[in-house]
Amino acid sequence: MTKEIEAQRHRGEVFRRLHAGKPILVLPNVWDVASAKIVEQAGFPAIATSSAGVAFALGYPDGEVISRDEMAAAVARITAHVTVPVTADMESGYGRRPEDAAATVQAAIAAGAVGMNFEDSPGEGREPLIPEAQQVERVRAAREAADASGVPFVLNARTDVYLENVGAPDTRLAHAVRRLNAYRAAGADCLFAPGVSDAATIATLVKEVDGPLNVLAMATSPPVPELERLGVARVSLGSGPMRAGLTVFKRLAEELRAAGTYGALAGAIPHAELNRLLGA
Amino acid sequence: MTKEIEAQRHRGEVFRRLHAGKPILVLPNVWDVASAKIVEQAGFPAIATSSAGVAFALGYPDGEVISRDEMAAAVARITAHVTVPVTADMESGYGRRPEDAAATVQAAIAAGAVGMNFEDSPGEGREPLIPEAQQVERVRAAREAADASGVPFVLNARTDVYLENVGAPDTRLAHAVRRLNAYRAAGADCLFAPGVSDAATIATLVKEVDGPLNVLAMATSPPVPELERLGVARVSLGSGPMRAGLTVFKRLAEELRAAGTYGALAGAIPHAELNRLLGA
Repeated sequence: MTKEIEAQRHRGEVFRRLHAGKPILVLPNVWDVASAKIVEQAGFPAIATSSAGVAFALGYPDGEVISRDEMAAAVARITAHVTVPVTADMESGYGRRPEDAAATVQAAIAAGAVGMNFEDSPGEGREPLIPEAQQVERVRAAREAADASGVPFVLNARTDVYLENVGAPDTRLAHAVRRLNAYRAAGADCLFAPGVSDAATIATLVKEVDGPLNVLAMATSPPVPELERLGVARVSLGSGPMRAGLTVFKRLAEELRAAGTYGALAGAIPHAELNRLLGA
Repeated sequence: MTKEIEAQRHRGEVFRRLHAGKPILVLPNVWDVASAKIVEQAGFPAIATSSAGVAFALGYPDGEVISRDEMAAAVARITAHVTVPVTADMESGYGRRPEDAAATVQAAIAAGAVGMNFEDSPGEGREPLIPEAQQVERVRAAREAADASGVPFVLNARTDVYLENVGAPDTRLAHAVRRLNAYRAAGADCLFAPGVSDAATIATLVKEVDGPLNVLAMATSPPVPELERLGVARVSLGSGPMRAGLTVFKRLAEELRAAGTYGALAGAIPHAELNRLLGA
């Protein structure tokens, strides 16, 4: 066993334990190396990528338009520069077959990750959700690939029932619970239901799903202490943090174009500080 | 001549003309595709990359630690996604010889750029400035490579006399002017003196240099209309815009860690809007 693999196994064990109960695991998702370094420096015990953030930065829309290799390369750049565990958002596994899911787990592990988001929405321009039985097979294949690697690997199975507005609103809770529990039975470690932000539904999901629950925080979501109280195991922010940064950049560009002033530059992290953070 | 080359020549002509006088050319530098799309959408007639921004995003400190190929690949991702002219910050040309400078121009043009920043600071951990005579040879080689390409190419020669605090403060103006005029005589189109933000020195530089002057705007710089009045031809922002965005991200991470709230997400560009901007 090489030193690198040993270190990755250790990070995998650490990351697994972060799902074991309180405190809630909080993940402000990153999209490049600079953002990952900032999260590590802020004291977070782990880092999650945002697939949308990585895609936007590299010139793709969200929804599995980028290739598995290019996504994995972005993850590898990040893991090479931080010491905390990294979990990779690998969308729907880049291909519809179980072996595609397995190959994506292998790519994530080869990129240095110790966890992966794996969703049942097949991506841009395709039908909203992969049929449940098919997705269960894919979760099982992902689990087997993770176990075969020897790296403790947190498989975070995501259903997009809410995000994709699948079916009548009053059917979504039961649909999401059924899918998440099927994914759990097929080997998922953590269950992710983005698109839910009201406390009552979150509390019901916590009760109904058979494993740790991950929710996506939006501006309107209950604050982290409230999510912890509700029993949520993990909260992530998706592409929100990247879009918040780009929003400031957009305002800066608009201010520059309209008034020719640089107000948005005031108080920015100094060049020398960011340079040191990146290893100068 | 392929359609692509024809289009690149056209962008080169457009970009050249943007240096011909008023209005001043304003360039809020970008570091990835998403930031480039935002600048284009905001109505800017051209886009400049920040080498520090690209380096930070990909996991390198500033100062030519990244390779020429990796920097050119980042530029190519950007030019593939915008229709306005792009000028690439290619640091000190990735190598000390004149042929390195020429190869870097060729790489920038192959990446779709129609202009390039070329500096006399050799990068991280090396002496502050490349000797003037050597840099003049390199500017000449860069010019020859640009002319040989057939693409109208704005060579923006930069001196880091101010940024690197070279020599006694009262010698820097004369030193910068001497270098910039030597670079101009060797074939540079535009002359760049970052690190100067007081109006008096800027006015003197405008008067003393033999070509269009580029200044780097910082939070404390005169606003764009004042720079235009002083006769500045081009103003760029370096890594400031990227750092301003990351600063908001850092605050978001710190708020999340300290209070568990998401205030910094409010008002962010919606996912669907950014997704459309990236071509969904």
